[in-house]
Amino acid sequence: MPAKKSTGRKSTAKKAAAKKTTRKAASKAAPKAARTTAQHGPKKAPVRSKKPTRRTVTDATDKRTIECIDDTAKVVYDKILKKNAPELKSPVRALSNVRYDPKVGYLEIGKARKVRTLTVNTVKAFAQTLKMLHISKEMIEQDTFATKREAYYVSKNWNEARFKEQPESDTVMDDIESMFSLHGVSREQLRFYPEEHGGAVAGNLVVIDRDPVSGESLRIDCTKFGSGAYTIPHSVEHLEFETKAKFVLAIETGGMFQRLQVHGFWNTANCIIVSMGGVPTRATRRFVRRLSEAKKIPVYAFVDCDPYGISNIYRTLKVGSGNTAHLNRFFCVPHARYLGVTPQDILDYELPTHPLLDVDIKRAKDALKNDPFFQQSKPWEKALNQLLKMKVRAEQQALAKWGLNYVIEEYLPRKLKEAKAFLP
Amino acid sequence: MPAKKSTGRKSTAKKAAAKKTTRKAASKAAPKAARTTAQHGPKKAPVRSKKPTRRTVTDATDKRTIECIDDTAKVVYDKILKKNAPELKSPVRALSNVRYDPKVGYLEIGKARKVRTLTVNTVKAFAQTLKMLHISKEMIEQDTFATKREAYYVSKNWNEARFKEQPESDTVMDDIESMFSLHGVSREQLRFYPEEHGGAVAGNLVVIDRDPVSGESLRIDCTKFGSGAYTIPHSVEHLEFETKAKFVLAIETGGMFQRLQVHGFWNTANCIIVSMGGVPTRATRRFVRRLSEAKKIPVYAFVDCDPYGISNIYRTLKVGSGNTAHLNRFFCVPHARYLGVTPQDILDYELPTHPLLDVDIKRAKDALKNDPFFQQSKPWEKALNQLLKMKVRAEQQALAKWGLNYVIEEYLPRKLKEAKAFLP
Repeated sequence: MPAKKSTGRKSTAKKAAAKKTTRKAASKAAPKAARTTAQHGPKKAPVRSKKPTRRTVTDATDKRTIECIDDTAKVVYDKILKKNAPELKSPVRALSNVRYDPKVGYLEIGKARKVRTLTVNTVKAFAQTLKMLHISKEMIEQDTFATKREAYYVSKNWNEARFKEQPESDTVMDDIESMFSLHGVSREQLRFYPEEHGGAVAGNLVVIDRDPVSGESLRIDCTKFGSGAYTIPHSVEHLEFETKAKFVLAIETGGMFQRLQVHGFWNTANCIIVSMGGVPTRATRRFVRRLSEAKKIPVYAFVDCDPYGISNIYRTLKVGSGNTAHLNRFFCVPHARYLGVTPQDILDYELPTHPLLDVDIKRAKDALKNDPFFQQSKPWEKALNQLLKMKVRAEQQALAKWGLNYVIEEYLPRKLKEAKAFLP
Repeated sequence: MPAKKSTGRKSTAKKAAAKKTTRKAASKAAPKAARTTAQHGPKKAPVRSKKPTRRTVTDATDKRTIECIDDTAKVVYDKILKKNAPELKSPVRALSNVRYDPKVGYLEIGKARKVRTLTVNTVKAFAQTLKMLHISKEMIEQDTFATKREAYYVSKNWNEARFKEQPESDTVMDDIESMFSLHGVSREQLRFYPEEHGGAVAGNLVVIDRDPVSGESLRIDCTKFGSGAYTIPHSVEHLEFETKAKFVLAIETGGMFQRLQVHGFWNTANCIIVSMGGVPTRATRRFVRRLSEAKKIPVYAFVDCDPYGISNIYRTLKVGSGNTAHLNRFFCVPHARYLGVTPQDILDYELPTHPLLDVDIKRAKDALKNDPFFQQSKPWEKALNQLLKMKVRAEQQALAKWGLNYVIEEYLPRKLKEAKAFLP
């Protein structure tokens, strides 16, 4: 369908647009695509055409990312000059290639590597990988970014190398991501951003960002949002922090976050509250990780007492997930601890409950049986078995049985007095 | 299960907690429940017990809401004294009771009323309705709120009147909501807040909120968030605005919002950008409505060109939805206009497309056949038929075919020059 779309009548306008477009996205990587586009720009394309703003990259992280890209390209280039088949190496992404060492604190990718050698069969994917890397380099130079979806659409100008469906481009991006994770470079540093932004933040924290256009430094005071909050951006690598808060409280639901925000819990408890809204996004996990590491403050998770809250939300926040083990070094919070709701809380606070569903039971048993994190943790083994025995689950909102603000006035203060007793 | 849970051993601690709890949530409404709780407070309940902070309500909106609650209760009370069966009236919530008048600008609830008279069969729901109203009044006096979920859990202290499942409490809340919509009182004013907060905001806007605890006024400058953004709170009734922006741009996807934010589009175009993240939440719609009305600035929608983007996202933003017609007076933005992506844009900008799925075709045909908004709009009839004829859809990200920032440098500026041509 897109192939069809890109046939059309000539016009200077089109040429102009096309020149510009291809300079922005795919020109050097795809001279042929460039020419094609030049003949098929949009009818409404501009007559004027601006130069894309290219900056001299000064940011250390960006410099390092560009070096990694250049090195990768150079290895391929030299091999070709020597008439050898070039290769691209990336870690095998499978649970079989995942390990957990409590000292490291997150699910790590193993040593197994996947090698793609340039052959007649791999030539297209090989070219697409290099083109994707080229876009990445250009995005850094132009200080912009692309979502997975946009990267897919950009390829519509690659002519023969164009992706037919997004899953193809996603796979190439995942390969690149894992390839560069070996060099400590994340997908965000390559300027491929997730579609969804991070959660909401409030509390005793000043986030130091820069104006994306002027570059001027900005101080964002998270005590000054009233009933609103600060939204974590899609990429947080460049953020810095000032805080005297004692801990970060990562909260499962937006409703509970709003309660703690509106009643200034972060003020009385001197903390920073973060709304995860279910399983935390990459940006949220990275934000909490960077913040808590930079400021050396503990992270406590406050989620529902059910196998999903424990083995999906909390587990992902703390040690990451198995099938993205190559990312966990960036995206998990190994020092996070579990404040509650615990199975014991259900008894101690006589909470209203719901029966465990089959899917809950299966999830808890899987965690005990197959999850390297829960397997090495006696306290969690005990807690999950207790939950399975009780056959019930309880939500953090269930504390409302004792009054809407019981959670603020009684539950959290009492739990925080025994932080050492939190589940690991 | 919860019923079982609330049997337990006595203790002064429990009594203390219970007294406190019931004062907070359900005491006057449920003396029996109060006694019950007194016997069954949580094991870990506090010995000390604080008075809930009751404020003298000064806020005009809150005062009016309390008056409405008192009036409703008084009518019931007087009827009972006169030994007549008390009634509660609310609008019939059905498409059959919905009308659309372009002059009004949104789908309105009709004149049909549902009357619930107190009988042996309705006594429980009747009691629950009055208890829910009582909580609402207490929440206003204590300046707090409850999510639907929390309201359900609070009822666990109501003894016989307790809700067994949340759908029961949701129904009662929906009845109350529509009952009070007749008096111009929204659910948020009754302090029942939605679980999900609003979208992200950035641009030439200062939001004036107050510190929820100190009451001190706060100025939130939405030009100073760097790559982050402002999260709209769950309730926006109390917010005020300062802006010289020319328009509000409501954007479907978080990715596109991030692009416009990071490249300071709101600065060059002098506007306010709002991320809807699909169908906008109640808070987002109310925020855009109050902002644009207070400041008399137009609202433009920028969504995908498919029947979902048009007849769900845009239609809900502009005229609300049929089955919540009693809310539309609060939650829609009648003066919103459709910037794009339009079916004609797909041709003019030669966008990559995807074929319409059966569900898309059905949705578009339903809109033309049954939706009072699209029925009275010739331009929309034409546009939807054009889309059905083209048999394709295109996403806003598809503009990336011409370069990642083509949307900022060419598409939006050109469209904004012809704002009069936007679809109604």
